[in-house]
Amino acid sequence: MFRKTRLFTPGPTPLLPAAQFAMAAADLHHRTPEFRALYLKVLAQLKVFVGTSNDVVVLASSGTGAMEAAVTNLTSPGDKVLVLSAGKFGERWVSLAKAYHCETVVLSKPYGQTFTVKEVQAQLTPDVKAVFVQATETSTGVRHDVKALAQLVKGTDTLLVVDAITGLGTTAFDVDGDGIDVIIGGSQKALMIPPGLSFLSASDRAWARMETSTNPRYYFDLRKERKSCAKGESAYTPAVALIAAMGAALDYLEQQGSGDLAKGRDLLVANAELCALCMRTAAAALGLELFSASHAAAVTALKAPEGVSSSDLVKGFKKEFAGVLSDGQGEMKGQILRIAHIGYLDYLDCIAIIAGLEQVLAQLKPESFQYGDGLRAAQLVYAKARQNVDKS
Amino acid sequence: MFRKTRLFTPGPTPLLPAAQFAMAAADLHHRTPEFRALYLKVLAQLKVFVGTSNDVVVLASSGTGAMEAAVTNLTSPGDKVLVLSAGKFGERWVSLAKAYHCETVVLSKPYGQTFTVKEVQAQLTPDVKAVFVQATETSTGVRHDVKALAQLVKGTDTLLVVDAITGLGTTAFDVDGDGIDVIIGGSQKALMIPPGLSFLSASDRAWARMETSTNPRYYFDLRKERKSCAKGESAYTPAVALIAAMGAALDYLEQQGSGDLAKGRDLLVANAELCALCMRTAAAALGLELFSASHAAAVTALKAPEGVSSSDLVKGFKKEFAGVLSDGQGEMKGQILRIAHIGYLDYLDCIAIIAGLEQVLAQLKPESFQYGDGLRAAQLVYAKARQNVDKS
Repeated sequence: MFRKTRLFTPGPTPLLPAAQFAMAAADLHHRTPEFRALYLKVLAQLKVFVGTSNDVVVLASSGTGAMEAAVTNLTSPGDKVLVLSAGKFGERWVSLAKAYHCETVVLSKPYGQTFTVKEVQAQLTPDVKAVFVQATETSTGVRHDVKALAQLVKGTDTLLVVDAITGLGTTAFDVDGDGIDVIIGGSQKALMIPPGLSFLSASDRAWARMETSTNPRYYFDLRKERKSCAKGESAYTPAVALIAAMGAALDYLEQQGSGDLAKGRDLLVANAELCALCMRTAAAALGLELFSASHAAAVTALKAPEGVSSSDLVKGFKKEFAGVLSDGQGEMKGQILRIAHIGYLDYLDCIAIIAGLEQVLAQLKPESFQYGDGLRAAQLVYAKARQNVDKS
Repeated sequence: MFRKTRLFTPGPTPLLPAAQFAMAAADLHHRTPEFRALYLKVLAQLKVFVGTSNDVVVLASSGTGAMEAAVTNLTSPGDKVLVLSAGKFGERWVSLAKAYHCETVVLSKPYGQTFTVKEVQAQLTPDVKAVFVQATETSTGVRHDVKALAQLVKGTDTLLVVDAITGLGTTAFDVDGDGIDVIIGGSQKALMIPPGLSFLSASDRAWARMETSTNPRYYFDLRKERKSCAKGESAYTPAVALIAAMGAALDYLEQQGSGDLAKGRDLLVANAELCALCMRTAAAALGLELFSASHAAAVTALKAPEGVSSSDLVKGFKKEFAGVLSDGQGEMKGQILRIAHIGYLDYLDCIAIIAGLEQVLAQLKPESFQYGDGLRAAQLVYAKARQNVDKS
């Protein structure tokens, strides 16, 4: 039997063909009018994609580079910062803040959980210079309530910094309305292109903070990058092919929104939400429990069924169908299965995942369900969603 | 909701990514040692793919070009030929034979049917110079019994010419053992690359016939092409990028067969057979009838359910899922739905088609089935096939 390689992982995600071709064709020098025109267009489109009137900068780095840039540009040694940590990427904020000698207060919750407003409020003293959080914690599939956090810092001098690397394009944000100071994205997620680019938008008060913060920075100096961006340049050599790919992906979203990129992005979010809903419903029909009550559309995290390791489910799916699902990370390895709904995946992909999961699960835990139970459940959810779209 | 464009048509079929990249990279001149080396390799691989020790030639044309080449090279005006016609492509043989002034005897059967050995035998007088037939009639999904036809012409002076454009890679052939004189393929089918190339192999007696046949030919002169091929050249400018793509596709099949291209091709055929079996079983579970009792693995042709036009099923699938199914052709338009299992499609693609079909069918003919009926049926067939593979 033939098997097509398929990525169902929360990054990298499946590549958009038009972006692949743009990448292959990107035979241009970065200090030319041609590149400047491309870059200015992409930067303008990214602002719409992020949903902000704030300036956006792009870095040739993985998402962690932009996280580091946020820490180094916004803090000074000894600054008190609050990190909300409930997973592997929350822990990355902790490591970064400590590496740059911040006085790091960690509000920590077990993997799979999120924070209540009260818990955050209790830690949010006026001397906290910045709060660092994930919009969606990729390691657990949990959505944190960014809107509520934004309410808490409103009118204070505390900056809110959101890692939305898997959040952008899977979650609705009102960046300017809510007052998110910094929001971070990566190329290999909902933008449907390979890893290698990160980007972030920063509010006026975040830009102002950078003028007084004293942590060291060079490659990730956002002020320098912002000045370059204004001219359609990057401070250092940009990853030209990835910029071209990103432009093609943003053009695709614009087409999907019939010429309106914001609408195309909203469709992308709605698509992720529908796929996540179908997947969750199918999982329940197969007797699989969600790992968290606060689930993001980005990633469905499922507890491995009793007596079965999620590592074996991942291996089985790869062997049988050449499809790549994600195991738990760190301490969660073997315990949870993670399935992404980010970017260039549609309902028929979602159905394919459920079918494959049924086959692999039946081998590891036979008789815990009937073939088709998960598929039927997803079909009913889709049909209902479709009827609602027809009515509206 | 997002929708990925997906071809489920019997040509063109989904493109193999490795072939797309080879095509994009094919920046070479055709009168060079580099191209000659590529072409000789592809021609040798094609012989394995076709399963013959006969010489194979490639033409820069659609499949119809190779059909025309077979007629013009093997016949003379006034020659008596027998065409077995039970569909659109059988009719094409009739048109070609008549265009080249053959005395054309047509054994015609209604769409959806095939020929009995007795019926063919009754027409097969010793003066018939050639029999023209399809291995799989793409317009109806019917498989004709090429092996039985080969038995009939064995030891006579009649040549057997088989259009296997959708047959190669979906059907097992013993070209030399059975004595198929000419067998024809096209690039945009099981070889997973775009249209633009046809190819055929010819037996010694077919090559001998070409020396005495008098029908006019120039571009499609197979003797000239054969001589060029021997040197790694083509008589006229070859479609270089498509040759490179074909090489990449044949390399892929070789990899699938762990270094054995014949084994890779057999896996491709087995894959088509499995997908076709799953599709037929799912269709039955959804109350859809097969159009023919003699069904090819290449194409599943289903009767439109009572009160529903197959054109509406095709349109609905395109609108809802951006997937392309095929309507009936010619007089069959609106009456049958055709779903291909040719080339780069795997079981999870098959599941996606069934899921989409359930959704579209439910809108046009609600309550004729329960959501998931087709999917469950396919899952059971797959699980059983898998167990058999494990046992063997």
